[in-house]
Amino acid sequence: MIGEIIAIGNELTSGRVLDTNSRFAAGQLFGAGHEIIAMATIGDSPEEIGRALKRAIARSDFVVVTGGLGATSDDLTNEAVALALKRPSVLFPEVLEKIRRCPAGQSATEMRLLEKLAWLPDGAEVLSPERRMAGYLLIHDHTPVFFLPGVPHEMQELLAERVIPRLALWQGESVRRVRQRVYKIFGRPEIEINRLVGHLEKASPRVRIGYYPVFPEVHLSLTVIDGPPATPAPAPSATTSIDTTANLFDRLAAQIEAALGDCIFGRDEETLEGVVGCLLRTRAQTLALAESCTGGLIAGKLTALPGSSAYFSGGVVSYSNDLKEKFLGVGHQLLLAHGAVSGPVARAMAEGVRERAGVDLALSVTGIAGPGGGSAEKPVGTVYFGLATLERTLDFLYRFAGDRRQIREIAAATALDLLRRHLLGKLLQP
Amino acid sequence: MIGEIIAIGNELTSGRVLDTNSRFAAGQLFGAGHEIIAMATIGDSPEEIGRALKRAIARSDFVVVTGGLGATSDDLTNEAVALALKRPSVLFPEVLEKIRRCPAGQSATEMRLLEKLAWLPDGAEVLSPERRMAGYLLIHDHTPVFFLPGVPHEMQELLAERVIPRLALWQGESVRRVRQRVYKIFGRPEIEINRLVGHLEKASPRVRIGYYPVFPEVHLSLTVIDGPPATPAPAPSATTSIDTTANLFDRLAAQIEAALGDCIFGRDEETLEGVVGCLLRTRAQTLALAESCTGGLIAGKLTALPGSSAYFSGGVVSYSNDLKEKFLGVGHQLLLAHGAVSGPVARAMAEGVRERAGVDLALSVTGIAGPGGGSAEKPVGTVYFGLATLERTLDFLYRFAGDRRQIREIAAATALDLLRRHLLGKLLQP
Repeated sequence: MIGEIIAIGNELTSGRVLDTNSRFAAGQLFGAGHEIIAMATIGDSPEEIGRALKRAIARSDFVVVTGGLGATSDDLTNEAVALALKRPSVLFPEVLEKIRRCPAGQSATEMRLLEKLAWLPDGAEVLSPERRMAGYLLIHDHTPVFFLPGVPHEMQELLAERVIPRLALWQGESVRRVRQRVYKIFGRPEIEINRLVGHLEKASPRVRIGYYPVFPEVHLSLTVIDGPPATPAPAPSATTSIDTTANLFDRLAAQIEAALGDCIFGRDEETLEGVVGCLLRTRAQTLALAESCTGGLIAGKLTALPGSSAYFSGGVVSYSNDLKEKFLGVGHQLLLAHGAVSGPVARAMAEGVRERAGVDLALSVTGIAGPGGGSAEKPVGTVYFGLATLERTLDFLYRFAGDRRQIREIAAATALDLLRRHLLGKLLQP
Repeated sequence: MIGEIIAIGNELTSGRVLDTNSRFAAGQLFGAGHEIIAMATIGDSPEEIGRALKRAIARSDFVVVTGGLGATSDDLTNEAVALALKRPSVLFPEVLEKIRRCPAGQSATEMRLLEKLAWLPDGAEVLSPERRMAGYLLIHDHTPVFFLPGVPHEMQELLAERVIPRLALWQGESVRRVRQRVYKIFGRPEIEINRLVGHLEKASPRVRIGYYPVFPEVHLSLTVIDGPPATPAPAPSATTSIDTTANLFDRLAAQIEAALGDCIFGRDEETLEGVVGCLLRTRAQTLALAESCTGGLIAGKLTALPGSSAYFSGGVVSYSNDLKEKFLGVGHQLLLAHGAVSGPVARAMAEGVRERAGVDLALSVTGIAGPGGGSAEKPVGTVYFGLATLERTLDFLYRFAGDRRQIREIAAATALDLLRRHLLGKLLQP
């Protein structure tokens, strides 16, 4: 089905808040086989909301609206529905009862504010009747319009549990199927990837290849749309397999994997830290970190994964030279001789944290993230990595471009990619 | 001026990439006094892009378009302009020359791809002629339409340096001014804040108060729009000051600050970690951290600030019990007796890192972020914080709700808020 997403709120149109809901909804709906032709963001103006609603209903098979359903005075979505779709709000007694029943410890004033949530457009169907969560479905001109709260976890839950199953029932068997895979790539620029695999798009008009820089990664999506083979097949012999969607998809996927090789670190939902965690777990290796310029970023990414304590022991954020000596045993003379941002210090940091933590593998990062601290010899963006195992210690020098945030992010990703390559036995020579 | 933002790319409508450009552009344009009435996100379809462009040009004073200007085959913005606005792409020799001059080490094939960037719509004015950056201005039906690249740092630079100054010239003196401030609040729910200050909106129809949960914070925006006092002023005596926009704004700001007190941690662009960093700097205090369940998140936030090495020494990510003993000197018996998630261990972690790092102040976090590891006595969301100074050590127990990511985020913010309150001498009693 063709859908449209509308996000509501002055906090979005004034740039105060980043709209993550539309992206989440688009990703889930795309994954369920729908196509989103447009996403609109509208301020808290009933007239503008109403215009966007009417336009979306007229041209799409379904509409998802997020935000503006709350109890505060700037929540105006229902007012817009009343105006634009001629559906005045009416009291839903069962919703009111649910609000009054919930022992959330509100004062009488707060309770009166919350009671606004029981007034919904005429004809609305409450999406989650058993729980106190805003969100309803309105079928207008035969088009399902889902109104979801702007609070991300409520929106996500309702979308996954109510909206997508409901749409699957709605569409019956008429859905146009796609096969899709996203390859996640680190260490090659978008334009080079395009050069390596761009010609594959010519295999069929049903094939689409997209390139998306998601700093510091590049994501490549391969999509094959179901349908008859577009070019008339040559007279099939007994041994020629028919180029079905599945065959075509598998053939292109194999060609992409061959062209990009090790630079592909993951697929679809996989993340760099997730892949590293999985490799550590399956190889029964334990890891510790010594982070200087990344200041805890890498540890933060690794510990975001549930169960990471099985392979990640922790580490030291040795932001000052003093802590490099005290917590990692880096020699004072070594620091003086080479400077904190140097190969020998990166190695000493990795060895220090590996020995003291008693782990199999340790990685260190020391560099100049800027904006200050650079020199002619070691400009901003100079970053050394150390990798210590039971057998040996290596160091790696990189020079990154960008601002402080970008240098820290690309340094953290490079560290994880070094670990990934080491665990796969495919480390590039320092 | 009234503006509209259009973001282009299948990576956005399929949810693979989060659109941060629109939010950045909206924030900057709002700050410059413009009002954004809508933000649209469109896939890589020339027809849809064209329709959105024509609609925006018809109803807005200016339009900002981001994305789809690159060299790869899915960059179709110029094609849409040719179709919708009847402006075919023509070769801009000076752009071509600039591309060929740049010694970026491309192969001949890559260079041919890049040369696509020299074909721009008829009548386009290149925004940054001295550098190799996509982006142009097209004046169509007397409406300025700015086409900017989708790469965030290029877009941001062109918006700040070219678009906003150009719009300021365009609008002359007709801009409608607003005074605005955003208060950032931690530790109070949105509905309670609404209850405390919501009545202030009644002061004048020119006043708008908005509430935006930005997990785990709540942001409150106070906006006063320029204009004549809406209610006829009473006959002014010699001592009555006129309720100008500035007076009205200041009066309301003072009332908000009085009502919310210490819960306001910052204003406008301020962040919790930035406020803590500033307090540490002005009080000449040094800080170290011992993070368990937050796993480096707090250190990562503090070191994101340039110059943080002046007050932040670093710390230990003691994710395993072993590292709590080895790097922080937490007693083995203490861990056995109370468990790693306990007040005594939080205190020992804070004391351990403070003494070993030789700093003035240390903070520790140990808790259960989930989804596993909870018990009846210590459910998921149980988090202890330790705060060690030269004089004393305190511990604090919190129970947070949410998923793993939310618990880690709110624990990190709580830790920073405890530091903020300690440095202000306004610590709540544990």
